[in-house]
Amino acid sequence: MKIINVGASVTASNDKDAALLREEMRARGQLMINLMSSPGSGKTTLLSRLIRDLSEVKIAVMEADIESAVDAERIEALGAKAIQVHTDGMCHMDAGMTRAAVEALDDDAAQLIFLENVGNLICPAEYDTGAGLNMMILSVPEGDDKPLKYPLMFEQSDALVISKTDALPYFAFDLEKCAERARKLNPQIRVFPVSAKTGEGMEDLEAWLLERLAAY
Amino acid sequence: MKIINVGASVTASNDKDAALLREEMRARGQLMINLMSSPGSGKTTLLSRLIRDLSEVKIAVMEADIESAVDAERIEALGAKAIQVHTDGMCHMDAGMTRAAVEALDDDAAQLIFLENVGNLICPAEYDTGAGLNMMILSVPEGDDKPLKYPLMFEQSDALVISKTDALPYFAFDLEKCAERARKLNPQIRVFPVSAKTGEGMEDLEAWLLERLAAY
Repeated sequence: MKIINVGASVTASNDKDAALLREEMRARGQLMINLMSSPGSGKTTLLSRLIRDLSEVKIAVMEADIESAVDAERIEALGAKAIQVHTDGMCHMDAGMTRAAVEALDDDAAQLIFLENVGNLICPAEYDTGAGLNMMILSVPEGDDKPLKYPLMFEQSDALVISKTDALPYFAFDLEKCAERARKLNPQIRVFPVSAKTGEGMEDLEAWLLERLAAY
Repeated sequence: MKIINVGASVTASNDKDAALLREEMRARGQLMINLMSSPGSGKTTLLSRLIRDLSEVKIAVMEADIESAVDAERIEALGAKAIQVHTDGMCHMDAGMTRAAVEALDDDAAQLIFLENVGNLICPAEYDTGAGLNMMILSVPEGDDKPLKYPLMFEQSDALVISKTDALPYFAFDLEKCAERARKLNPQIRVFPVSAKTGEGMEDLEAWLLERLAAY
């Protein structure tokens, strides 16, 4: 498994770089999904489930992290192509870093490429990575007040995946209130409550991903 | 309740500023505790419990956040002095920002002052705030692999509070393995598994805080 180190881009034109990367990937029929969340929200577990369920689609994964390669190793064990991206202490991925990661991944056959961004609800929301879709995960144990505290993340996301719904009986988490708070910030946001453990809700999310890939 | 806005300090000498703030507070008999964690790990719930349990100590709280005042409102409802600090989008508190917060708090009688840092396991670990103790919270649902992914946070912390232990039956979280991983990075780190909900483990944490305050 490849591990690459990327530092912050020197260019000041991140938005332009991101738009260019998006267009190049679209031309190759590749949909990149920027996956953002807090640490421990279950990004890698969700990805593992998607890889198993969507076996008709070629999926590759770029795991960005400060350190370690545990996530990429988990993904590779499922047979999907994965690389680990070390961000040199940076708390987010920008478009230049993402381009370096896509080049290191070097997989023109991949149709869905997930970028697992650094675990953090703040900085990743501030940088366009060049992804075709932004998807955030909020896990039930984190609490339904997060849209109030991290509005930019909810504003920037095309989809909100509410993960670990199997834990709903043990936490005071109001699904309806959380979805409502997210929609107040971003009326277009799609909300998918799921449990990657039990499979509950995964079908709707997977159908939406396939639909977006077909329309891309 | 006061809400203040602080931006990044202009000074390049954060370590010097932090040391000076620490000495000034020590001279006033005030122990500042820098509380760091992911979003949703239960920082405010833990603080609420500490305020109720440690009624013999005068506690004040500075809640740093990008937006909203929900945390400070929860603390004030318990009768403790609290201010909300908005970080102008910054993902951490530095010593200059913390000094501005301490001045805005304006409470010379407070003995324990908690700084609830921005919810994030990366950036807050990189800046000395001037606190006398660094305490991090890792909640059970986040997973026991976090020391592998965010080593600096564990290296910088005097204490690791493992929160939401009441959720242990529902998550694959190995307390011993997590503590071992943390101690490998930081042999001096104190580990306190607690549930602020049931009260389990709170006594040890509270005894340690009182001991550190007495020795300060």
